[in-house]
This record gives sequence, structure tokens and C-alpha cells, in this order.
Amino acid sequence: MQIQPKLSDIKKVHACIVPYINRTPVLTCQSIDRMTGSELYFKCENLQKAGAFKGRGAHNVVFSLTDEEAKKGVVTHSSGNHAGALSLAASKRGIPAYIVMPKTAPKVKVTAVKEYAGQITFCEPTLEARESTADRILKETGAVMVHPYDDYRIIAGQATTALELLEDVDQLDMILAPVGGGGLLSGTALSAKAIRPSICVIGCEPEMADDAYRSIQAGHIIPSVNPKTIADGLLTSLCDKTFTIIRDLVDEIVLVSEEAIINAMRITWERMKIIIEPSAAVCLAAILSNKLNVTGKKVGIILSGGNVDLSVFFSYLEKK
Amino acid sequence: MQIQPKLSDIKKVHACIVPYINRTPVLTCQSIDRMTGSELYFKCENLQKAGAFKGRGAHNVVFSLTDEEAKKGVVTHSSGNHAGALSLAASKRGIPAYIVMPKTAPKVKVTAVKEYAGQITFCEPTLEARESTADRILKETGAVMVHPYDDYRIIAGQATTALELLEDVDQLDMILAPVGGGGLLSGTALSAKAIRPSICVIGCEPEMADDAYRSIQAGHIIPSVNPKTIADGLLTSLCDKTFTIIRDLVDEIVLVSEEAIINAMRITWERMKIIIEPSAAVCLAAILSNKLNVTGKKVGIILSGGNVDLSVFFSYLEKK
Repeated sequence: MQIQPKLSDIKKVHACIVPYINRTPVLTCQSIDRMTGSELYFKCENLQKAGAFKGRGAHNVVFSLTDEEAKKGVVTHSSGNHAGALSLAASKRGIPAYIVMPKTAPKVKVTAVKEYAGQITFCEPTLEARESTADRILKETGAVMVHPYDDYRIIAGQATTALELLEDVDQLDMILAPVGGGGLLSGTALSAKAIRPSICVIGCEPEMADDAYRSIQAGHIIPSVNPKTIADGLLTSLCDKTFTIIRDLVDEIVLVSEEAIINAMRITWERMKIIIEPSAAVCLAAILSNKLNVTGKKVGIILSGGNVDLSVFFSYLEKK
Repeated sequence: MQIQPKLSDIKKVHACIVPYINRTPVLTCQSIDRMTGSELYFKCENLQKAGAFKGRGAHNVVFSLTDEEAKKGVVTHSSGNHAGALSLAASKRGIPAYIVMPKTAPKVKVTAVKEYAGQITFCEPTLEARESTADRILKETGAVMVHPYDDYRIIAGQATTALELLEDVDQLDMILAPVGGGGLLSGTALSAKAIRPSICVIGCEPEMADDAYRSIQAGHIIPSVNPKTIADGLLTSLCDKTFTIIRDLVDEIVLVSEEAIINAMRITWERMKIIIEPSAAVCLAAILSNKLNVTGKKVGIILSGGNVDLSVFFSYLEKK
């Protein structure tokens, strides 16, 4: 896929990955609707296989490789969810997955990669270290690089999330997605604007990792420099492909504080009884902290993932 | 409803409560299936309104009262989830709910009652204190007593959980439900055995609150005496109605340790990304601790609720 995917491409990708992914439920919550004065529809990619939307793009790439391309395996660098998803997809195809992870990656995400038989190499938590380590492994193994978002096959895969949401819920006024590297947000915009041109597409981003916001303001990519946010899935910077789509199709990028992220995560856990990771909480955070007015609106929210280290909670329970 | 509900009664109750409850999703989890060598279908009553199956019975009672009966409100005693559910149902009908709660009830359940405008009176955590306090309020207010399970209208309401599960999943070999007072388990047995006579119905109970197990063994009700278990929804004892149904229709009651409950709860949170309370973890605990052989079987599991106090986890996050 060398050019921006169209809706027909995204539908083909969806048909290709359907055997491997969950059609995740869309949940609603009356008490959160009351708090926000809106109708919110949560697309639960935290309930996706490997706990995040990333499996959509990863399965699309892995299963669109020829046998010849696939046999030496796949390589990637990822702060976590893409790594788990690619390892899972590779294991399903019976090929090796070589994974470069920042040494700061959450333990729960490292464990997931290991469980799906991904072979991990740790590196420093910078984009440069991640890319150079991945390059080295690429040369050593002859495997295929699968970038977490700088790849239209990945973007088209992530776009199937919004495709399903818009199939399941009519007449959405807005759709919100988190933005890190921009794969999910750009895929969301491609699907949503094609299916429903009047829809408003909003990206939500931590203030502490506001590179997408600043890039769109500036009109060119401004990479993230050593961002620190609890939303560990949103540390990466846009690439040309995602920047272009977001610049052209996304209506607004909204920034949220760390406090707002934790609060939105807690409200989701308590009210909806589902586990979302901090990165998945940025959209509700934008609404609850009044960064975005949704009063009277019908809003789709993509809950991107649910991989959280729960050991603090359970060590407390075990001691009790 | 003066006699044991039949399947036709349960279906009528379902039609009556459908406007007020969620048709909760049935989720599956490949990694837990792999661990257990079985196919497990989780009926997610943790995603029910007010976070537990209890809303089914409560709405049935509240909406089957005449206006004359309803106007002075409803009274109950409950360790938590029935209290929240009854408060919610009463608030929807616009009548008062008077709630007697043991002073040891989890804060999150107390908060839920307050949010639904239930009027709480705290008492000692014994059945006797709960009943005598409720009796007093009953006399003072003229409200209608709604027992959490000693009521066929409640049992028929809880029975709609298994009704939906068996509508959604064919050919189940077994169905598992937690047992406290026995409302859910007896309702489950009534629906499941009527729809699919060959199904095996299993009750799961904490070793530390094993009164249902001992009652069935003995052939008469042996009340729980000051039980202490993390499964705070399973502290109550059977009543005649639930004892009789369970004795006649439930194939086995399986006991699980506290450690097994916490482990099953953790695995559910981590793998399925949903929040279940300890009481809801007893069924998976029975399987994972090899108290029940499910190899090769297709098994329905009722996840009864998801009301857990999350403050430990979030105070940790906020401090970070």
C-alpha cells in the first residue's frame, strides 16, 4: 500500500483481519453521560486481542506478506502495545517476531510480548536508540521491518476501529481518538470522514507529550523530546504519513493534563468496570476537564487499550 | 409470585425489566481458554447497571408494585449490590429506598447507594442486626420490604441472567454461578435446567463462607456464622426458597480458597481487561484451582459484579 488508503481499501483490510481480531463491543454508561451532558459511545479496543487496537494493523501487515517475505520474520520497535500485537500476529503465522522495546516499557507489556513468543531486545527510551537497534536487528536477521505507524498498511488496519464503530452507531457528531505516533488518529480520520463527512474528528494528547498539537500548529513535524507522561503509549512523534492525514482531516487536537488523565481513567474503571490504560483515558479526560464541549452531542470515543500493571493493587489485596 | 417461577414466568419478567437493564455482553478470552483447556463464556453482569446482576431482581419487584404499594417506598438490607440496585430501581420509579447496610460494607457500594439517592442506615454486620434494623424502618415508614433473595420475584429477576446467556451461547455443557444467599444460583438453575435439561449447574462458594455447601450436605439450612472472606457479596446464608431450588436443581457446590479467589480476580482483570469484584471471581477460581474439571467443556460463567474499591490503586498513581 503506497498511497493513502481509501475507504474501499480499509474495508478490504477489515475483511482480511476479521478472522484474527475481536469485533470489540461498543459500551455506553449512563452515569458518565449524565456527568458530561452528552451521549458517549465507547469503542472498547481494551477488549481487543492483546489488549489494544494495535492488533488490527499488525495482523494486516503480517498476513499480507508473501511466504517469501514472511519467512525470516518481522522486526519492530515499540513502547509496548504494537510489540505485543505484532508478536501475536507473527506467532499466528508461525514466524519469528524481533521486538525492540525501551527499557522503561511497562512490565505488563514486556510480559505480553514474551507470552506471544516475541524475542525482545531492550534499548534506551529514545526514538534514535529504538530505530538504530531495530536497524541492526533488521540487518542481522533479514526480517521485515514493521513500523508501529509509519506504514499505510498499519494505518489502514487501525482505521478498521472507526469503521466498526460507525457501522454500529449511527449519526455520531464527533469521534475522539488518542494521538501518539498518529496511526490510530489518522486511521480514524480516514474512515470517519469517508463514511460521514460531517463528523468532527478530534485528537486527544497529553500536555506533557504535545508534539502532535505543536506540529499541527507549526505546519511541520516537531518531534517529541524526552516526553514524560503517565500515558506511556503516547510518547512517539508523528511521521510524514500520519502528519499529512491529521493536518488534512482532523478538526482539532486537544491537550489534557496528567491529573485529568488519571481522573478519567478512574471514572472509567469505577463506572464502566473496564480496565483502560492511561493512554486510552485522554479522550474522556478532554471532555471531563472541559477542554472540549460535547453538550448535547453524540460522541464516539476510542478506548485504545487496557494494558496496565496491576501489581500494586493485587499486592495490597494479597497482604490484606 | 407465590410459587417457584417457571421458564414462562422468567421470560415475562425479562420482558418487564428489559427497558431498565443492560443486555450485558458475553465475553471470551483465548488465553484463559488455553490455561483451562476449555471454552469459557463469561456473562458480564459486572457491566450491568449499578455494576451487578442485582438490578434484574430489584427492577422486577419495584416495577411490579401497584402505585398504592409503591408510594411509601421500599426497604432492604444488603451488603451492597442489592442496595445499589434497589436504590437505582426506586429512583427510576420515583419512590424512596431505605437501605440497611452493615457498617463493614465497602465504601464503593455505600457511595453507589448514595448516588442513587438511597437513604442509608448502618448496622452491625450480622444477619440479625440487619433484619431487626430493617424491621424497625419498615414499621416507621410503611414501605415495602424487598429482601435481597428470599422472594420469588427477585429469584425470577436474577434468573434472566442465565436466560440471556443461554440465548446467546448454544450447547453449554455447564453453567457456574457464585452462591451467597442463593438468589443468583437458584435463578440460574431454574433457567438453565428448563432451557437445557442436560446442562450441569455448579455453585461456587468461598471456603471461608461455606454455609451453602454445608447446608446442602446436611439436607437443611446451616446459617453462616460471622464469615470472613474477601468475597463480600457472599456473606449471606440460604433461605428456604433458595435452599430448595439449589437442593433440587444444582449438581454440585464447589469451595474455593481466598488465594484462589484473588488469583482468579487478577487473571480476569489482566487478561480480560474488565473489573470484577472478588465475589464474581469464585467460579473461575474453582476452575483455575482444579476444584472442577472442565477440560474440553463449553462452560458459561456468570460474572456477578464489578463493584470494587479502587482507591489503593489510584492513590498510588496520583502519588507517582
